[in-house]
Amino acid sequence: MLPTQTLARDPYASRNVDQWELAPRLDPVLWDPATPGPLSAEQLVRFDESGFYGFERLLSEERASQLLTRARHLQLTLDPNLDEVISEPASQEIRSIFRVHRLDEAFAETCQDESIVGMARQILGSEVYLHQTRINFKPAFRGKEFFWHSDFETWHMEDGMPRMRAVSISISLTENTKLNGPLMLIRGSHRTFVRCVGETPEEHFRSSLKKQEFGVPNREALQLLVEQGELVAPHGPAGSAVMFDCNTMHASAGNLSPTPRTNLFLVFNSVENRLVEPFAGTPPRPGFLGERD
Amino acid sequence: MLPTQTLARDPYASRNVDQWELAPRLDPVLWDPATPGPLSAEQLVRFDESGFYGFERLLSEERASQLLTRARHLQLTLDPNLDEVISEPASQEIRSIFRVHRLDEAFAETCQDESIVGMARQILGSEVYLHQTRINFKPAFRGKEFFWHSDFETWHMEDGMPRMRAVSISISLTENTKLNGPLMLIRGSHRTFVRCVGETPEEHFRSSLKKQEFGVPNREALQLLVEQGELVAPHGPAGSAVMFDCNTMHASAGNLSPTPRTNLFLVFNSVENRLVEPFAGTPPRPGFLGERD
Repeated sequence: MLPTQTLARDPYASRNVDQWELAPRLDPVLWDPATPGPLSAEQLVRFDESGFYGFERLLSEERASQLLTRARHLQLTLDPNLDEVISEPASQEIRSIFRVHRLDEAFAETCQDESIVGMARQILGSEVYLHQTRINFKPAFRGKEFFWHSDFETWHMEDGMPRMRAVSISISLTENTKLNGPLMLIRGSHRTFVRCVGETPEEHFRSSLKKQEFGVPNREALQLLVEQGELVAPHGPAGSAVMFDCNTMHASAGNLSPTPRTNLFLVFNSVENRLVEPFAGTPPRPGFLGERD
Repeated sequence: MLPTQTLARDPYASRNVDQWELAPRLDPVLWDPATPGPLSAEQLVRFDESGFYGFERLLSEERASQLLTRARHLQLTLDPNLDEVISEPASQEIRSIFRVHRLDEAFAETCQDESIVGMARQILGSEVYLHQTRINFKPAFRGKEFFWHSDFETWHMEDGMPRMRAVSISISLTENTKLNGPLMLIRGSHRTFVRCVGETPEEHFRSSLKKQEFGVPNREALQLLVEQGELVAPHGPAGSAVMFDCNTMHASAGNLSPTPRTNLFLVFNSVENRLVEPFAGTPPRPGFLGERD
């Protein structure tokens, strides 16, 4: 147990603890269910219960294909030394491109699409802004796995996101199959905060974007979450999408298949949840990882 | 292209080459289809065409459960410093135990089971012996991936197996799901030999059992094999099994799920295909990896 003083200061304290712990979520999932928007009452209830909601078709096949072409264009033409460009741990292959809404008009449009932004507004019960955007390329045969984590744990500790009031949308630009390393989520895990053991090394993001080693839950915590919930791996065609709460535990396996898995990932944060000083006490990460403007 | 002299000496030359190459298989898959045995004509034809055959139930649930208990017992009681015991790259967790037919009576019995040995005899068209046996534990959350490879390439180069006349059987002792890193195979890949670029470092097996870096096909070769065939990942309950040719290209993803994937793996070689000097020119690997007696 952490001292009461620490918890009063930060209910989502993590890392500078001796012992991992499961703590209850103190924030609502739906901040104002009366907010109008494109999601039906049933969709909202399912998001609230599960911590995610899957769309068989969020973008048309045509639109997904256009965005995939743009993504490949950026992959081939961007300077790999840009901060926004992350390569695979063992090769020079581009793994992720951040801030795509500022790098390309087609992605900027998608990020402003009212059918998408409206869902975020509806869930977070306020106006929203883009906290982070990125394309994840998971190249055929070589795409590496990403271990289980809650995005909120990192955003809270390393970016200073105060509360659980952000939502992510992962849009498939290629088909997600059971074999190309699809997103896996633990249903119901958004209701529990896992305090992780460990510190926050300086400039942790330089390595954590390739392979995260701190802010990672341990096996016992994961086992408990899975026992309370269920492990799911939605798959679907290009244009399908999964919207998930910032604290939903998720992972993705490596891609050993001959088809790449390329996804567009958008994170909306409530304007009432703007970033403050990071709770790890470290300097904030760069703006392309968590917008501060 | 390799010099004709080299190829006359070794049609399955690999590694000491400048350029990867796809070479046709020179050996039959079924060495004498008239050999009597438990497999039906249809099963033989499918094995011949695909390079593998999946059994929904090879062992009874009860037998699979008994073997799993024995496997866990060995995992808990064996000295981790034994040569036969291999641990995970990043932890001390036991990943594989070799030569289980000599370590435990229950495994010895399974390896002599006529319904299993009879299939190997039928495919290889001769008497057979155990080239290698092992248990692969793929622990929950931590089991690491194994990249695409042909077992024959290694057995030929590092153990001195002359021809493609061996067959493997992987028997599930736990359920194989789409999420716990099941075996993946490329249908039809057994008909092509991929000459790999690279050398054979001394005592390569000490690292290759954890993570293979030589004798590994490149992406272009894999892409061609997949285009000619199809990628499949059979899954099934405890007691299900996949029998596959020694040259069938296979891999398995990491296990990020909360359930372990534990398999018993048996390799039968024809008595007419006994090991000679390794074709890589290196000393033979230890007997627990390739029996020489």
